[in-house]
Amino acid sequence: MSHNARNRQVRLGAFLPANGHHVASWRHPNTPSNAGHDFQHYKRLAQAAEAAKFDALFLADSAATWSDVRKPDTRGLNGNDTHFEPITLLSALAAVTDHIGLVATVTTTYNEPYHLARNFASLDHLSGGRAGWNLVTSANAAEAANFGKDEHLEHSRRYEKAEEFIDVVTGLWDSWDDDAFFRDKESGRYFDPDKLHILEHKGAHFKVRGPLNVARPPQGHPVKVQAGSSEPGKELAARTAEVVFTAHQTLELAQAFYSDLKGRLSKYGRVPDELKVFPGLFPVVGRTQSEAEDKFARIQDLTLPVVGLSLLSGMIGGFDLSGFDLDGPLPQLPESNGGKSRQALLYELARRENLTIRQLYLRTAGARGHKQLVGDVKTIADHIEEWFTQGAADGFNIMPPTLPDGLTDFIELVIPELRKRGLFRTEYEGKTLRENLGLSRPGNQFAKREAVAA
Amino acid sequence: MSHNARNRQVRLGAFLPANGHHVASWRHPNTPSNAGHDFQHYKRLAQAAEAAKFDALFLADSAATWSDVRKPDTRGLNGNDTHFEPITLLSALAAVTDHIGLVATVTTTYNEPYHLARNFASLDHLSGGRAGWNLVTSANAAEAANFGKDEHLEHSRRYEKAEEFIDVVTGLWDSWDDDAFFRDKESGRYFDPDKLHILEHKGAHFKVRGPLNVARPPQGHPVKVQAGSSEPGKELAARTAEVVFTAHQTLELAQAFYSDLKGRLSKYGRVPDELKVFPGLFPVVGRTQSEAEDKFARIQDLTLPVVGLSLLSGMIGGFDLSGFDLDGPLPQLPESNGGKSRQALLYELARRENLTIRQLYLRTAGARGHKQLVGDVKTIADHIEEWFTQGAADGFNIMPPTLPDGLTDFIELVIPELRKRGLFRTEYEGKTLRENLGLSRPGNQFAKREAVAA
Repeated sequence: MSHNARNRQVRLGAFLPANGHHVASWRHPNTPSNAGHDFQHYKRLAQAAEAAKFDALFLADSAATWSDVRKPDTRGLNGNDTHFEPITLLSALAAVTDHIGLVATVTTTYNEPYHLARNFASLDHLSGGRAGWNLVTSANAAEAANFGKDEHLEHSRRYEKAEEFIDVVTGLWDSWDDDAFFRDKESGRYFDPDKLHILEHKGAHFKVRGPLNVARPPQGHPVKVQAGSSEPGKELAARTAEVVFTAHQTLELAQAFYSDLKGRLSKYGRVPDELKVFPGLFPVVGRTQSEAEDKFARIQDLTLPVVGLSLLSGMIGGFDLSGFDLDGPLPQLPESNGGKSRQALLYELARRENLTIRQLYLRTAGARGHKQLVGDVKTIADHIEEWFTQGAADGFNIMPPTLPDGLTDFIELVIPELRKRGLFRTEYEGKTLRENLGLSRPGNQFAKREAVAA
Repeated sequence: MSHNARNRQVRLGAFLPANGHHVASWRHPNTPSNAGHDFQHYKRLAQAAEAAKFDALFLADSAATWSDVRKPDTRGLNGNDTHFEPITLLSALAAVTDHIGLVATVTTTYNEPYHLARNFASLDHLSGGRAGWNLVTSANAAEAANFGKDEHLEHSRRYEKAEEFIDVVTGLWDSWDDDAFFRDKESGRYFDPDKLHILEHKGAHFKVRGPLNVARPPQGHPVKVQAGSSEPGKELAARTAEVVFTAHQTLELAQAFYSDLKGRLSKYGRVPDELKVFPGLFPVVGRTQSEAEDKFARIQDLTLPVVGLSLLSGMIGGFDLSGFDLDGPLPQLPESNGGKSRQALLYELARRENLTIRQLYLRTAGARGHKQLVGDVKTIADHIEEWFTQGAADGFNIMPPTLPDGLTDFIELVIPELRKRGLFRTEYEGKTLRENLGLSRPGNQFAKREAVAA
């Protein structure tokens, strides 16, 4: 393949649920028995990913258990429902790493922007500029019941709220100019009142005065990440996101998404390079193709049917599939109030490959709709190179099937091959996540500009 | 003095605002210039306090700036308004310490119990059982405006809400029995559904289903700390608190509070030893009395009058004192909606010692109503021993005037003297904060008890 972008480098995120991405990963012999509450496990993963020069760690989140723990048939069989909260975990990891970015998912649906702005600003200061916020609207309807709501907020209203939420958060991050602080011990002047900006936000969803009681973050704004691929999700991303995680099954669909999203930026006064697109990649890597297939078969075999089926149900909006023939086709289902783009993707996948319900849940048991690749080093590296050079990706969010093995395999086998091809760094370029991703540091929206000479 | 409690040991908290407790501490030559956002500074403090065997670090909090940054006369002169958020900071410190407790203040007035229960459970797992939650109701009316409220919630309503809040939080911590998890890789059974407890809370202020998506904390419940000394504050503490921070000026008042509070426990089926009372102590320590006085004069001299006056105004409910003669008496003021007990304490202090407004603000510029002691090692140690042995304290929350110096002085000068008197440990007794404080581990309120043989 050609290297039409010698200096352009693949960006890599390490997406690290405690046990790994496969729904049965906790049953893998090498996964720690209580990975979700094992800080030493996460510390080893973070330090390994940093030694390999990953751009960032990425943690998903839900403010409720992932699976419906009340459902009789799967009760007690899901091993991924209890784990650290991401902001506390990343804060702890900040103290034992020096370079790697720290990206946490936090919902805009059941949170207060003041708390969120403050937590990420604090994490950015703690880590010397390595924080990222993955903004989501809650796709897990169970969250509503933990926050006093009878009904989950409807999809389009969630996006309205998210649009306002992010403006409040960035407004709070800009409470103080970068140079607001004299800290002059001699005179007693600590800050310059002209460089303090009190937000006084009043909107449809939020009323927030400010200022934030944290100085402006080292990165100006922690890196703004998003993952929604619905129509309102793409518009929000085009206006505000700097990294977008996304799920695609084919090069063509990934290219279409990439150019669609990047094409929307100009309307918001942005250029395509201000937003990086990271498709998810679930790699099962072997030294040979058959080694990879054996690895995959081993973990697939650990998937209890009720658990796989329950995961699939959750991904198509909570529709109960247990009455249908597992070896028959996916029925036509009503549109959900959950993650719309993921539901559409799974329909498309099942139709394109003519999958039965059983085949579909086995296909989603690991990658959950993201691209799944089972192969040798060349297969994985070729895929990365092709998507990266053919306008489908700026980077990838790597989703190890099990942990630590899936991450170790990728680091030991795939990364050296990417370096051989000139596609991946051998050293961090900068000090902050923003610098390593090649994103510029945003100015303060409220700072008084110096008058330009006429 | 007699040692009527040879085995009973003084407990010590290190209460660590970034610059120290004195309002002018940021101007002290040895305070780091940006202490509020300097993780290495906090790491050194935490490791020093741990080496000295302090029971816990303690962080205060406010979800707004402490001072009113909009007030024209003090704008720009206060150096304590921007700093790390406590939960993120303590999570990072958990990764670089092994024994010391980590106590963060979080308000019940402008928070969701699910988020709070989750954050503290996660911190408890991250730290191996060293988390503590200092429950407060917001005394800073400025918080309201950051959370969509036109008016600060009224004092008695704040306590009603706090009473319900803590029950929801402890209910969520008890979502899972300690032995709920099989984690049996062979069979695929992860947890025992009979040992999962879904809260289904419906109350006047909160509706929260649960379960928490974190396993039961290592301590069962993170240590429950409180600081309210008003009538509803004492009742809440008697029912639920395990450590109470409090402020007293005289032995007699401290003894009265101690016996009052401990006397209330039996009504909730508790014994006096289940709650430890920690008065605050602001020590200015010297090798000699005059060295201590010189130290204190140096930091007092750095207090700008408008800053001192503004701090005092804040502590008496926001009443503006700028129109009054600084060298005259404190006027009679209306009852505030802020911290009621602190307001009463300051009136009492001003009356007892016949203080002018200027003298009062200089008296509160450091200790903020807590006991201030300026003296040599014997003076400080005698005070600790007297209050500890005479029924006024189980421990002390040490409030260093400046940091790091104020902590270093206490560690190097006072702790050896306490050890010489047999009053303070040379090694941690246990692994968790709860064990070190001598508090028992609470059982799960929902666990099915084994039938007792008749």
